[in-house]
Amino acid sequence: MSQSMTRSPLAPASFPDLPVIKGVRFASASAGVKYQDRTDVMLALLAPGTSIAGTFTRSLTRSAPVRDCQAKLGDDCKDGAAILVNSGNSNAFTGHFGQTSVEQITSAVANVTEIPETRIFTASTGVIGEPLPHDRIIAKIDELADGLSEARLKDAAEAIMTTDTFAKGASAQVEIEGQTVSIAGIAKGSGMIAPDMATMLVYIFADAKMEQSALQSLLSSICDRTFNCITVDSDTSTSDSLMLCATGASGVDATGNDAFASALETVMLELSHQVVRDGEGATKFVEIQVTGAETDSDAKTHGLSIANSPLVKTAVAGEDPNWGRIVMAIGKSGAAADRDLLSISFGDVLVAEKGWVSPNYREDDAAELMKQDEIIIKVDLGLGEGHATVWTCDLTHGYIEINADYRS
Amino acid sequence: MSQSMTRSPLAPASFPDLPVIKGVRFASASAGVKYQDRTDVMLALLAPGTSIAGTFTRSLTRSAPVRDCQAKLGDDCKDGAAILVNSGNSNAFTGHFGQTSVEQITSAVANVTEIPETRIFTASTGVIGEPLPHDRIIAKIDELADGLSEARLKDAAEAIMTTDTFAKGASAQVEIEGQTVSIAGIAKGSGMIAPDMATMLVYIFADAKMEQSALQSLLSSICDRTFNCITVDSDTSTSDSLMLCATGASGVDATGNDAFASALETVMLELSHQVVRDGEGATKFVEIQVTGAETDSDAKTHGLSIANSPLVKTAVAGEDPNWGRIVMAIGKSGAAADRDLLSISFGDVLVAEKGWVSPNYREDDAAELMKQDEIIIKVDLGLGEGHATVWTCDLTHGYIEINADYRS
Repeated sequence: MSQSMTRSPLAPASFPDLPVIKGVRFASASAGVKYQDRTDVMLALLAPGTSIAGTFTRSLTRSAPVRDCQAKLGDDCKDGAAILVNSGNSNAFTGHFGQTSVEQITSAVANVTEIPETRIFTASTGVIGEPLPHDRIIAKIDELADGLSEARLKDAAEAIMTTDTFAKGASAQVEIEGQTVSIAGIAKGSGMIAPDMATMLVYIFADAKMEQSALQSLLSSICDRTFNCITVDSDTSTSDSLMLCATGASGVDATGNDAFASALETVMLELSHQVVRDGEGATKFVEIQVTGAETDSDAKTHGLSIANSPLVKTAVAGEDPNWGRIVMAIGKSGAAADRDLLSISFGDVLVAEKGWVSPNYREDDAAELMKQDEIIIKVDLGLGEGHATVWTCDLTHGYIEINADYRS
Repeated sequence: MSQSMTRSPLAPASFPDLPVIKGVRFASASAGVKYQDRTDVMLALLAPGTSIAGTFTRSLTRSAPVRDCQAKLGDDCKDGAAILVNSGNSNAFTGHFGQTSVEQITSAVANVTEIPETRIFTASTGVIGEPLPHDRIIAKIDELADGLSEARLKDAAEAIMTTDTFAKGASAQVEIEGQTVSIAGIAKGSGMIAPDMATMLVYIFADAKMEQSALQSLLSSICDRTFNCITVDSDTSTSDSLMLCATGASGVDATGNDAFASALETVMLELSHQVVRDGEGATKFVEIQVTGAETDSDAKTHGLSIANSPLVKTAVAGEDPNWGRIVMAIGKSGAAADRDLLSISFGDVLVAEKGWVSPNYREDDAAELMKQDEIIIKVDLGLGEGHATVWTCDLTHGYIEINADYRS
C-alpha cells in the first residue's frame, strides 16, 4: 500500500490521451481515507438512459460494495447513475458495518446528485478488515459534484490507485454508420491479481447505445478472454469489479456491431495488460500462447498453470530458459496432456518437441531471448484445436519487498 | 540445484539415530551424474518376502522412473527387491531415452544382485529434460553391492539430496505381541513441493510383515494426512515417489495393528515436516489448522489455499499478522465459506470472529507471535465438523535467490 514505489519498468511511456465520452463526467478529491497528500475518491456521473454492465469477483469473502453492486446491476438508469470509488480501504470483511458504510455513502451521493440511491454504485480498494471511515468520503461529495467535468477521466484513474505505480487508461474509437463512437476506460490493480474475476477495479465508458442485457453479455464474453486471462500472483481479490457504462450520448446503437465489440476488446485487452505490466515487482511481461489442447478450456488451464507457477515465474525473472519447469506446470495442471506430443518454444526458438529437447536447440539462443522485457512462451499440446493466451509477469525480489518487507 | 546453500534455520539440530531395520541393507556411491565431490547414488537391497507399497506424483508429465515403478508395483517380492536412486538428473521429459535409461540400470542391478529385473525400482531427482548419463551409474553398481550394510541408511539419505540443506530421517519403534517392530524412513525435497502427490522422494522401511495390498491401503490413507498436506510452492514435481517396504524380518505381522499404523504415521508426519522445514528460502514453519468446515475435504481446500497464497506467505515472512490476506485466500478457495461465521486466530490470539475483527484484538499481540519460528494459524468456518491441518513455510528473498538468481 506504499505510494513510494518506483514506476514499473514495464509501464507505458505516459498516460494516453483519452477521448471525451459524452454522457459521463468525472471528479476526484482528497478525502484522507488512508493516504495523505493525494486524491483517493472519484465520482463518475452518468446521463439518464445509460446502460451499465458489470462483472465482479467470485470470492466468497467479497466486499460489501461488491455485494451491493451485484444486487443493483441489471435495472435501467432512466434517471441517471453514479459510481463512487475510494482507495485506501477495501471495506471488505467489515461485518454489518460494511453495508452500513455503503448505505451512508450512496444515500449522501443521492442527496447531492438527485440520482436514485438504487442507481448509485460504489467500490472500495485497499486494506482488508478495517472499518471504512465513510464520514471522510461523505464530507467530500459536494466538492466532487461541483468539480465534475467530461475531461477528468485521468484524475479518476489516479484517485483509485493503491500499490499501482502508474495510472492505467486505454481508449478506442470506431465508425458506425458514419458516426464516431468512443470508448475509454481506466483500471487499477497490481497485486492480488488472479483470474476468475474481473481484476481489481476497471471502469469503461462508451457513448454508444445498448440495452443492459446485450451490454452485459458482450462484457462477460470479452472479459473471459482479457481480464480473466491475466494473473500476477494467483491471489484473487475480495474487491474485483469491472463496470462498463454505455451512455448512449452519441445516439448510435452498437448492439450486435462487430466493430464496436472489437474496439471494446482492444480497450479491455490493453487495460488488462497494463495491470500485468504493473504487477508487484514485475520486470518482465510474459505472454503464454497455448495451442493444440483438447479444448479451449484445457488450453486456458495449462496457460494459467504455467503463469501461476512460482518456479516458472522465478525462472523468467532470472532470464533462465528453464523449460523443464514449463513441463512441470503442464503436468500438474489437471488438463489433458501427453508428454510425447508436447512442443515448447520461447519466442521463435523451438526448445522441445515430441517430449524431448529439440535436436537444433541451442540454449544460448533461448538465453538471449530471455533478456528481453517481453517474453512469449508457446506451448503446443499436439492433441486438438483448443487454444488460449494468458498473460503474467515474473516473480522477483520486488514482489517480496512489497509484500513482506513493509507492513501494509 | 546448488549444494552450497546454508542449512535451513528450521532444520533439526542433527540427523536422528535411526534403528537398524532387519531385512534391508544400504549403500551409496559417487557416480558424478551431475554433482562432484559428493555421493549421488544409493542402493537399498530388500530381503525375499518384503512387501512394497508406493504412492507417486499424479503429474501427466511424470518421469520415466515413476512410470516404471507404477507399472511394477503390486507384485510380491519372493526373490527380494532393490531400489536404486540417483540425484542430479530427474530423467523426466527425456522421451523414449528415459525408459531406455531405466531399463539399462535395472538390468545392470539385476545382473549384480541376482534379483529379478521386475523387482528393481528406480528413482531419479534433479534437473528435468537432460538425458540421464546412466553409464556413470551402472559403473558404480559393483561398488554399491559390495558396500551394502544395515547401518548405512543415513548415507542413503545424503546421496539423494538436491537443493536440500539437510538430510532427512525419522523413525519409530512399537511393541506388538511382546516384540519390537522398527520403522525408519528418509526423504529429500525442498522446492517443487505441492500436494496431490507423495512429495519428492521418500523411502520408509519397517521390519514388520504385511501383505502388499494391506500395506498399500495403509500407506495411501496416511499419505493423505501427511505428505499430501504439505506445500512449499504449489508446484508439483514430475518425480515425486514414496515407497514403503515391510521386510517382515521381525516375524511380526502388523496387519490391522493400530499401534503400527500410528507409529508409521508419526514417521511420515515427521518426514513431511522436515521437507517443509527445508522449503527453499524458508524462515518460518507454518501450521494451518482448519475447523468447522462443511467437510474434511473443504477444510483441506481452504488450508491449502491459505498455504499456497503468495500474499499470505510473504506476510508470514514479513512477520505481519495480515489476517485480511487469510480472508482473501478463504474467499478464493472454491470451498464453502460464510464471511459472517468466520473466525481466525494466530496461535492463541483471536484476531477475527463473525466476519470482523475481534473486539479484544490488539495487533501488538499478534505481531509478537509472528516473530516466532513456528506459526500456527487457526481458521474456523463455523459451518460444520470438517477439519484438516496443512503445513507450509514462508515465501522469502531466499526462494527468489535459489530459483531466479542462479541458473539451475
